[in-house]
Amino acid sequence: MKEITLSIFGFGNVGRATARVLIEKERFFREKYRLSFKVLSVADTSGLVWLPEGIDLREALLVKETFGRLSAWTNDYEVYSMKPGEAIKEVSPDIVIDVTNDTNAHPWHLRAIRNGSALVTSNKPPLAFHYSELVGEAEKRGTPYLFEATVMAGTPVIGLLRENLLGDRVESIEAVLNATTTFMLSRMEGGKSFEEALREAQSLGIAERDPSGDVLGMDAGYKATILHCVAFHPITFEEAKVMGIEGVTPELVERANSRGRTIRLVARIEKGSVTVEPREISLKSPLAVSSNENVALIKTDLLGELLIKGAGAGPRETASGVVGDIVKASLALRGA
Amino acid sequence: MKEITLSIFGFGNVGRATARVLIEKERFFREKYRLSFKVLSVADTSGLVWLPEGIDLREALLVKETFGRLSAWTNDYEVYSMKPGEAIKEVSPDIVIDVTNDTNAHPWHLRAIRNGSALVTSNKPPLAFHYSELVGEAEKRGTPYLFEATVMAGTPVIGLLRENLLGDRVESIEAVLNATTTFMLSRMEGGKSFEEALREAQSLGIAERDPSGDVLGMDAGYKATILHCVAFHPITFEEAKVMGIEGVTPELVERANSRGRTIRLVARIEKGSVTVEPREISLKSPLAVSSNENVALIKTDLLGELLIKGAGAGPRETASGVVGDIVKASLALRGA
Repeated sequence: MKEITLSIFGFGNVGRATARVLIEKERFFREKYRLSFKVLSVADTSGLVWLPEGIDLREALLVKETFGRLSAWTNDYEVYSMKPGEAIKEVSPDIVIDVTNDTNAHPWHLRAIRNGSALVTSNKPPLAFHYSELVGEAEKRGTPYLFEATVMAGTPVIGLLRENLLGDRVESIEAVLNATTTFMLSRMEGGKSFEEALREAQSLGIAERDPSGDVLGMDAGYKATILHCVAFHPITFEEAKVMGIEGVTPELVERANSRGRTIRLVARIEKGSVTVEPREISLKSPLAVSSNENVALIKTDLLGELLIKGAGAGPRETASGVVGDIVKASLALRGA
Repeated sequence: MKEITLSIFGFGNVGRATARVLIEKERFFREKYRLSFKVLSVADTSGLVWLPEGIDLREALLVKETFGRLSAWTNDYEVYSMKPGEAIKEVSPDIVIDVTNDTNAHPWHLRAIRNGSALVTSNKPPLAFHYSELVGEAEKRGTPYLFEATVMAGTPVIGLLRENLLGDRVESIEAVLNATTTFMLSRMEGGKSFEEALREAQSLGIAERDPSGDVLGMDAGYKATILHCVAFHPITFEEAKVMGIEGVTPELVERANSRGRTIRLVARIEKGSVTVEPREISLKSPLAVSSNENVALIKTDLLGELLIKGAGAGPRETASGVVGDIVKASLALRGA
C-alpha cells in the first residue's frame, strides 16, 4: 500500500465533490490500486487548514457547508493565511490539486512543479495562457502535470489525445465545449428570450452570477485553446478567435429550427487555428448535443473520424476527471 | 534519438498496413517522439525473414505483393522456418508485434513477455482466452503488453478504459463491435436476402471467405470479452453468451424498419456478464451505427454516460491502433 499526500486548493463545488469522492471511494482505491490518500491541507479563499497528520475531509466538508468558509474551523485545526505558492513549499505534498478559479494560478503551478510535486488541475486559465511553460517544465522534470478536468469535465478527451492515438496525426477537431450556452440555446428553441434563458440558467446554478465567461465564449475558448495545445502545438488564448452567443436571437434560433437545424456554440480547432462561434448545424449532426453533454469530433489521418461525447459540466462529473488524474499521478509516482 | 527494434509476425492486411505506416511516418516519429524503428524480422505463414542490421520494409512489401509470400525473398535475405516462439528468443526485439490470426498465439505471447520483449497485438483469441495469465505476467514484469487494435480497430476504447476513468467505476458497456454484421444488416434493410448480403460483403473483402467468425458473433464475442476483462475483471470467452445474426431474416429487419427501428449485433457487458445478440434498437439510438463504425456506450458512477464512436475495421484503421501501441510501448521502454 502506497500512501500519497495531497493538498487541495479550492473548496467550491468541484473541490467539495472531489473531497466527497475521495471519502466514498477510499476502499475502492485501496483494493483496485493499492493506494491510500492523506490530505495534508485544504484551502479556500478564507484560509488554509494544514495538518501533517492528515485532515478529516468529512469535518472539512461539514465546516465549509455550515459556515461557508474553512477559516471558521478553529477548534482542532490551525488556519493559515498562506498564499498557495507559499503553502506548496511548506506543506510539500506529493500532489497539488488546483480546483480553484484563480486566473493567476500559473506562478504557483510552476512553484509546485519545481518543488517536485505532481499537479492535477481543473483550472483552465493557467493552461490556456501558459501551456508551453507549464507542460515544458513538468516534462523536463518528469513530474505528472495533469488537467483532464479542464476540458469536457471528466470525459477523457485530454487523455485520449495526449496518451492515445500516438501514431495518428490529428487533422481537425470540432467540438461543443460549453454546456451553459447549450442550455440557453435549447431554452431559446423552446421560445424563451435570451434574457429569460440566462436567468433560468442562473437560477438553476448552471450559469454563474457573472455569466460573461460562458456567454461571451471565453470558457469554450480556453478549452479549445487547451485542445489545440494537446493535439497540435502550444498556443495561447490570445491567438483564438472567439465569438459568444450574445448576438443569437430567438428569431435566429427559430429560423434554424424551421429547417431541421439548431444553433450551438462550436469550436473548430486546426493546426495553428482556433475558432469559437455560434454555428447553425443539422439536428442530425453529432455536434447537436443537449443538456450537459459536450462532444468532440476528432479527424485523424489513419483512423478517420472519432467521436467522444459525455458530460461537460457538473461537480461530480468534473470530480471524475480530477480524481482520475489523482490516481494516474499516484500510479506514476509509485512507478517512478 | 532512441532506436527501438521490432519483430513483425503476420504480413496480411493489418501487417502490411502497419509496415506502410512505419515507412510513411518515419520522420513524424523522429520529430514528434525522437524515436526510430529498426525491423529485425518479418514473418508470414511461409517463413521468417531476419536481418540483425534491419529489414527494408519497402522491399518486404514488394516481395509479398508480387509473390504472395515472404519466402520468395531469397536474393539478399535469409528465410527461416522458425516458429514465432523460437524466433522471439533468437531475434529478441524490444517489441514483438502480433498481427496474425493465430488462435494459438498465447504460448508465444508468454514467451515474448518472459523474454523481456514488449508485446503489441491486434490478435483477439490470446486475450479472449488467456487475459488473466498474459496481462498478469506482463504486469509482474513491468513489460508493456498492449492490445488497442483488438477491439474497435484503432478507436482507443482500450486506452480509454485501461488508462483513463481511473476514479470511476464502470457500471455497464453497450457496444456494436463488428462491422461486417452491420454491413450485412444494412444491406438487408435495403431489401437484400441474408445470402445476397453475405456474398456482397465477401466480394468487397469485408467478410472473410469463411464468414462464420463474424456472422455467428464470435468476433464480437471475443471483443466483448476483452472489454469485460479491462473494465471489470478477467474472464474467458467461454463465459460469454453469444448469438450471431444467422437467424435474422429480411422480414425481421423490415418489421423493425417500419417502426423507425433497426437491428444491430449488440454486446452488453456488465460485471460478470457478457451477452452478444442481435437487438432491435431505435434509429435514434447511439448504437445505430452504419458502415465500418463501431461504438461503445460506457456508463460509470461519476461521469454518467460516455460515448466513443469510430472506425471498427479496415487495415489502416487497425494499423492506427497497432502503431499507436508501438509508440506507447517505445516511450515506456525509453522511460524505463
